[in-house]
Amino acid sequence: MSNDAPTGDRPAPAQDAPHRIRRLPQRGSYDRAVIDAILDEGLFCSVGIATATGPAVIPMAYARRGDELVLHGAPASRLLKTAAGGAPVCVAVTLLDGLVLARSAFHHSLNYRSAVLFGVARELTDPQDKAAALQAVVEHLLPGRSADARPPNEKELAATRVLAVRIDAASAKRRSGGPLDDAADDAWPCWAGDLPLALSPLAPRPTTQGVAPGPPPAAVAAYERPRRTG
Amino acid sequence: MSNDAPTGDRPAPAQDAPHRIRRLPQRGSYDRAVIDAILDEGLFCSVGIATATGPAVIPMAYARRGDELVLHGAPASRLLKTAAGGAPVCVAVTLLDGLVLARSAFHHSLNYRSAVLFGVARELTDPQDKAAALQAVVEHLLPGRSADARPPNEKELAATRVLAVRIDAASAKRRSGGPLDDAADDAWPCWAGDLPLALSPLAPRPTTQGVAPGPPPAAVAAYERPRRTG
Repeated sequence: MSNDAPTGDRPAPAQDAPHRIRRLPQRGSYDRAVIDAILDEGLFCSVGIATATGPAVIPMAYARRGDELVLHGAPASRLLKTAAGGAPVCVAVTLLDGLVLARSAFHHSLNYRSAVLFGVARELTDPQDKAAALQAVVEHLLPGRSADARPPNEKELAATRVLAVRIDAASAKRRSGGPLDDAADDAWPCWAGDLPLALSPLAPRPTTQGVAPGPPPAAVAAYERPRRTG
Repeated sequence: MSNDAPTGDRPAPAQDAPHRIRRLPQRGSYDRAVIDAILDEGLFCSVGIATATGPAVIPMAYARRGDELVLHGAPASRLLKTAAGGAPVCVAVTLLDGLVLARSAFHHSLNYRSAVLFGVARELTDPQDKAAALQAVVEHLLPGRSADARPPNEKELAATRVLAVRIDAASAKRRSGGPLDDAADDAWPCWAGDLPLALSPLAPRPTTQGVAPGPPPAAVAAYERPRRTG
């Protein structure tokens, strides 16, 4: 079964490493190609931080830029401010691939691919660095878009905090394929299998502000996320 | 604009409450109907916990059961074990609704609905309680499914840790609609608008284990997530 095959890729990190996969390690991987494919396909991440009163998790846009994950937001954002100050962060990107409808309630599951990374963010302060990182965020949404849109001006750059987290202590986990029921349930009388789910674009809607835009470019009209199986 | 309208629902919590929305509060809501609709539509959550070395965020299946969110997993799961021991958790559910392609790079965004809750989990130890909570998790994937699948047996219940987090300190945040560009960019020559994205089911795939199941039931063949606009 594809979801039970050991990945045989990079060796697991030390026992106490934060990104070491403990549960169902056969579903895990430390392979950068696997991790990067998930990061490149996802559109939002869940950023976790530990505050004085407990953990906080916030969804954010992001982009992978080489060996780093770029986050951005308002300078006043508490989470970004805390992360910029050196507090460790954990970033998870999860792609939902389907429902696993087993014969037994116990073996119901989700098919998914997820990447989780742990690290300390560095803040980008040079306006050119910030502009390049923010360009990656726009390109991540739609490749080629940053050549078409108005680039950020000085004021906009100043009004944006940009952080980068190294993709270093990172791991991926995934489940795919059908249910894994016990043989004793082989004849249980209900339908069983998996139901793939995919994020699909609907019809683009032109802005109602300013000059009416013409028809959407092909990249928007036939939008697709990059998808590599790895 | 829908995304800038104050919600006018329940009042904001105290300044120092973990679930108080600080950034763009006009996009936030503390209304349980809004929060519940997001929790009921989502299929996975991102659970955050603070460990000795920093935050950890893990994707998990879940279900809302009245005023609680049910989480479950292997008894050895470090995150569940820590949460069962009284460590505060933060759970985020995010639904991605589309890309916002503005004329300016700066105003690019995502349309989304998210719910975030903060709390301390209680562990369910009574087998009947556990069975009822796990039934909610199966029903959350596919309503009616728990009547068809083989119910969990004693051994399976013992092999599952079940936690419940009260939906108490919770908030929702959402963005919808087209880009909000500056008037100065009204004539910038690129297409602008938003591209709705939706999670769509593909063709169900029958299990290859045991007796070949017949055609999928209508609830699987025409699968749809519950969707309320709130």
